[in-house]
Amino acid sequence: MYIKELMITQLSIEKIVGIISLIPSFSFPVFSQTMPLLATTTEAASAPLVLAGVLLSLVIIYFASEIGAEICNRLNLPEVLGQLLGGVVIGISALHLLVFVEGGGDSINSLLMTFLQTTTDLSPDSLEATFQSQNEVISILAELGSIILLFEIGLGSDLKELLRVGFQSAIVAIVGVIIPFMGGTCGLIYLFGVPTVPAIFAGAALSATSIGITAKVLAELQYLNRTEGQIIIGAAVLDDIIGIIILAVVGSLAKIGNIEMTNVFYLVTSAAAFLIGAILLGRFLSPYFTGLVNTLKSRGQLLLSSLIFAFILSYIATAIHLEAILGAFAAGLLLAETQKCRELKRQVIALADMLVPIFFVVIGAKTDLSVMNPAVPSNREGLIVAAFLILVAILGKVITGFTLFGQPQLNRLAIGIGMIPRGEVGLVFAGVGAASGILSASLQVAIVMMVILTTFLAPPWLQAVLPSPAKDSAETGTPLLDNDKTARFTVEQNSVVENVLES
Amino acid sequence: MYIKELMITQLSIEKIVGIISLIPSFSFPVFSQTMPLLATTTEAASAPLVLAGVLLSLVIIYFASEIGAEICNRLNLPEVLGQLLGGVVIGISALHLLVFVEGGGDSINSLLMTFLQTTTDLSPDSLEATFQSQNEVISILAELGSIILLFEIGLGSDLKELLRVGFQSAIVAIVGVIIPFMGGTCGLIYLFGVPTVPAIFAGAALSATSIGITAKVLAELQYLNRTEGQIIIGAAVLDDIIGIIILAVVGSLAKIGNIEMTNVFYLVTSAAAFLIGAILLGRFLSPYFTGLVNTLKSRGQLLLSSLIFAFILSYIATAIHLEAILGAFAAGLLLAETQKCRELKRQVIALADMLVPIFFVVIGAKTDLSVMNPAVPSNREGLIVAAFLILVAILGKVITGFTLFGQPQLNRLAIGIGMIPRGEVGLVFAGVGAASGILSASLQVAIVMMVILTTFLAPPWLQAVLPSPAKDSAETGTPLLDNDKTARFTVEQNSVVENVLES
Repeated sequence: MYIKELMITQLSIEKIVGIISLIPSFSFPVFSQTMPLLATTTEAASAPLVLAGVLLSLVIIYFASEIGAEICNRLNLPEVLGQLLGGVVIGISALHLLVFVEGGGDSINSLLMTFLQTTTDLSPDSLEATFQSQNEVISILAELGSIILLFEIGLGSDLKELLRVGFQSAIVAIVGVIIPFMGGTCGLIYLFGVPTVPAIFAGAALSATSIGITAKVLAELQYLNRTEGQIIIGAAVLDDIIGIIILAVVGSLAKIGNIEMTNVFYLVTSAAAFLIGAILLGRFLSPYFTGLVNTLKSRGQLLLSSLIFAFILSYIATAIHLEAILGAFAAGLLLAETQKCRELKRQVIALADMLVPIFFVVIGAKTDLSVMNPAVPSNREGLIVAAFLILVAILGKVITGFTLFGQPQLNRLAIGIGMIPRGEVGLVFAGVGAASGILSASLQVAIVMMVILTTFLAPPWLQAVLPSPAKDSAETGTPLLDNDKTARFTVEQNSVVENVLES
Repeated sequence: MYIKELMITQLSIEKIVGIISLIPSFSFPVFSQTMPLLATTTEAASAPLVLAGVLLSLVIIYFASEIGAEICNRLNLPEVLGQLLGGVVIGISALHLLVFVEGGGDSINSLLMTFLQTTTDLSPDSLEATFQSQNEVISILAELGSIILLFEIGLGSDLKELLRVGFQSAIVAIVGVIIPFMGGTCGLIYLFGVPTVPAIFAGAALSATSIGITAKVLAELQYLNRTEGQIIIGAAVLDDIIGIIILAVVGSLAKIGNIEMTNVFYLVTSAAAFLIGAILLGRFLSPYFTGLVNTLKSRGQLLLSSLIFAFILSYIATAIHLEAILGAFAAGLLLAETQKCRELKRQVIALADMLVPIFFVVIGAKTDLSVMNPAVPSNREGLIVAAFLILVAILGKVITGFTLFGQPQLNRLAIGIGMIPRGEVGLVFAGVGAASGILSASLQVAIVMMVILTTFLAPPWLQAVLPSPAKDSAETGTPLLDNDKTARFTVEQNSVVENVLES
C-alpha cells in the first residue's frame, strides 16, 4: 500500500517504454548485443563474440610470449627474442593461429576464428566483422604496448646518470649512430641502388641500440657496476634518445616522401624542441606534479596522473607529426626526475607485463618469413641485402669501443659488442617503416632479420669476451660493493634492469 | 669490396621488390597507415588517428575518473561513485566529450572527434570510421576492465575466511538476497505489471551487495576487526558469489527470453558446476600452478600465467552462455588459494587502476539521465519505479541484521546498513541487462538510480550508527590488535580493502 500511494497512475511499464522510445536521443545499452559498429559485411559483429575473440587472442599471445621468453631465458638469450619468435610461430609464417588483415591473413585462414566458430554460436555471416573487430582491438592493444614500453624505458633512463658517465658514453653513442647510419645508407644507395629515402630509413634502423637487451645482458654478467658497463648503459640511453629523434625525423620524411632541407630542419627542431622543451618544462613542473600527486587521496592516482601525462604527450607528438612513442618516452624521462619515480616504475611493471608482450608477439605474427626462404630464387637478393645490413650492424657498433683513447685498461671490444643488439628499438623502426609504406618488402624483412641476428649474437659474444665475476651473486642481483656511490648506482641500475627494462 | 663479393648479381632493390610483390601472401605492415578494417564509410579509418582518438578518450576518461574519485574521497563517499558521475558529466548526459553509438551519440555530436579534427589531419571522410573504431576499442577496454575488476574481487575473496565467519554471514547473505529479490520481482509484476523476465532481472539487481564499497567503508570506520564488520564482509563475499550465479542465470534467461524450469535447472547447475568445479579442480591443481610459476624464470610469468588462466575461464564461461566476468571471478577465487596470491594481488592492482576506471566512466558516459528529468511528464512513471526499487533495496537489506538472534550485543542495524550499497555489482547487472535488451529503458535507468542512491546513502548512514574508534589509526590502516588470530585476519582484510577492492 505504501508503494501504491506513491503511484500516480497504474500505467504498465510497457506504456512507459513505448513513450520513452519516442524520444530519439534515449538509449542505454552498455554492452549492446548487436553493436552496429562494423557494417562491412552482411551482419554486424556481436560484442560478446568480439570480446571472446579478443580473450582468445590474448590467451594465444600470452602462451606464445611465455613459452618463447622461457626458452630464450633458459638459453641465456634475451626474452624479447622469444616473444618475437613465439609470434612468428603462431602467426602468418607458421601456425596461422593469429593472423591479421594487414599481414596477408583473412578470416578463413585464421585458426582462431575457426575455433571461435566451433565453440560459440558465431554465425558465418558475422565472422568477417568479428574478425576485423578482433584485428582492430588487438592492433590498438599492441600499439598501447609500444607506448607503455617506451614510457617504461623513459622511466628507466636517467639524464643525471648519463651526464655523470659523460664524455665516453657520448663518444660511443655518437660513433655508434653515425657509422652504421652512414655505412648502411651509403651502402644501400651505392652498392644496391636503393632510393634515398628507404636507404636512409634502413640506415637509421641500424643506428639503434636496445637499452633493454644491453642492460639485461650486463646485469646477468654482473658488469653493470664496471666502467665498461656504465659506458655501455650511458651510450645506450643516449642512443635511445638519438634513435627516437632519428625515428621521428625519418618517419616524417617517409610520410612526406622526399628530403627537403627545410623539412629536415623543421623535424629535427620540432623533435628536439619537443623532447628538450618537455624536459625543461618537466623539471620546472615536477615539484608541482609530486605535490599534486601527494595531495590526491583516491586509489591509483599516481598511475592515472602519470598515464594522463604520458597519453597527452603521446597525443601531442602524434598531432605534430612525430611518433606517439616519442611522447611516451619524454613523459617517462620526465617522471623519472620526480620523487615518485620508484613507486611509479613498480606500478608500470605490471602494465608492461600485460601489454608489451602483445606488441612483440603481434610484430612476430605479422612477419611473413617465407620471403627469406632461399629455395625461392627471387628471394636470394633479399637475403644478400640482409647479410649486408647485418655486417654493417655488427661492424658499425664493434668499432665504437676502439674510438675511446687514453684508457688502456678498458675492454674496448666488450663495449662495442655491448652496443650490438638492436632489439625493440630496431623493431619499432621496422614497424614505423612498414606503416609508412616506404620500405620495400625485402628491406623490411632484412631489417627484422638484422634485429633478430644482432640480438641473438650479442649476449653469447659478450659473455665470451668478458671474464665472469662471481656468478651466484649476479643471479640474486646483489652488487659487489655496498656502501659507496658506485654501489648505489649499481643497485639503481640493477633495479632498472630487473624491474623495468628486460621485457 | 667485401660487400661486393657477397653479391650474386647487381640487381637493384626495385627489381627484387617487383618480384616479391608478385607473391600474393607477402606483406609486412605492422601499423598499416590505411587499415582496411572499417569500410562502412567512403574512407577507412587511419590507424594513427584511431590511436590518437583512443589516447584522447583515455585522457578524458582518466581525468573524469580522477576528479570524480577525488571529490568523493574528500566527501567520504566511495570513489566508484565519483567515477560513475565523472562519466555522466563527460558523456551523453552533459558535456558530450565521450559519446558512443550505442549511447545515442554520433560522430558529429562527439566533442572528442571535433577536437581530433581540429588538431590532426583527420579528414571528414574518415571521421565516421575513426569514430566507430574508437568506440569499439574503448568498449572492449571497458569490458576488459570489468574482467580485471571481477578477477581482483575474486583474488580478494577468501573461501576459508568465509567458512570461519560462518553461519551468521550466511544468514545475512541469504536473507539479503531473497528479500530484495522476491520483494522487487513481485512488486514489479503485481504493482507495476512488468513482464516476468525483466522483473526477475531487476529483482536480481537488487540482491547484489558491493563487497568493494562495503569493505572500503568498514576500513575507513575501522570496523573490519569487529564482529559486525566480519559478518558484513563474510556476507558480502557470499553475496558476490550468489549474485554472480544469479547474474549468470538471469542473464542467460534474458538471452533465451522466457523461463523454462529445465533452462533454470541447466543454468543454475552449469553456473554452480562451473564455479564449484573450477574451485575443486583449482584446489587440486593449485600446487602445480605454484610449482610451474616457480619454475618459470622469464619476466612477468606470474601475471601472464594468471591472466592466461583468467582469460581461458572467461572464454569458457562465455562459450557455455555464462558471463565472462564469472570466469574471471572464479579464476581470482582459485588463485587466491595459491601461495602466489599476495604477489599476484599486488601486480593486479596496477592493471585494475588502469582498466577499471574505463569500465565505470564508460557506464556513466553511456547513461542518459535525461530520462529521469521530472519536468518531462512521460518520465514521471519511471521515477516512481526507481523510488520503488530504492525503497525495496534499502528495506530488503536493513532487515537482514535483525534476522540474527542470540547475540544481543550486535549492532544489528549497522549490519543491515552495511549490506545496502550495490556498487559495481549492481552496475554490472545494469550493463548485462542492457546488453541482453530485456530491460526497458526506464527499468535500466531506475536500476542505475538505485545503485547510485544506495551507494551514496550507505557510507554516511553507517558512519552515523557506528561509534567511531580512534580515527587516526584507521587512516593508516593499523589494526587495533596485533598478535592474535583476529588481528591477522584484520590485517589481511585491511590489505584486501586497501590494495584490491576500493576502486
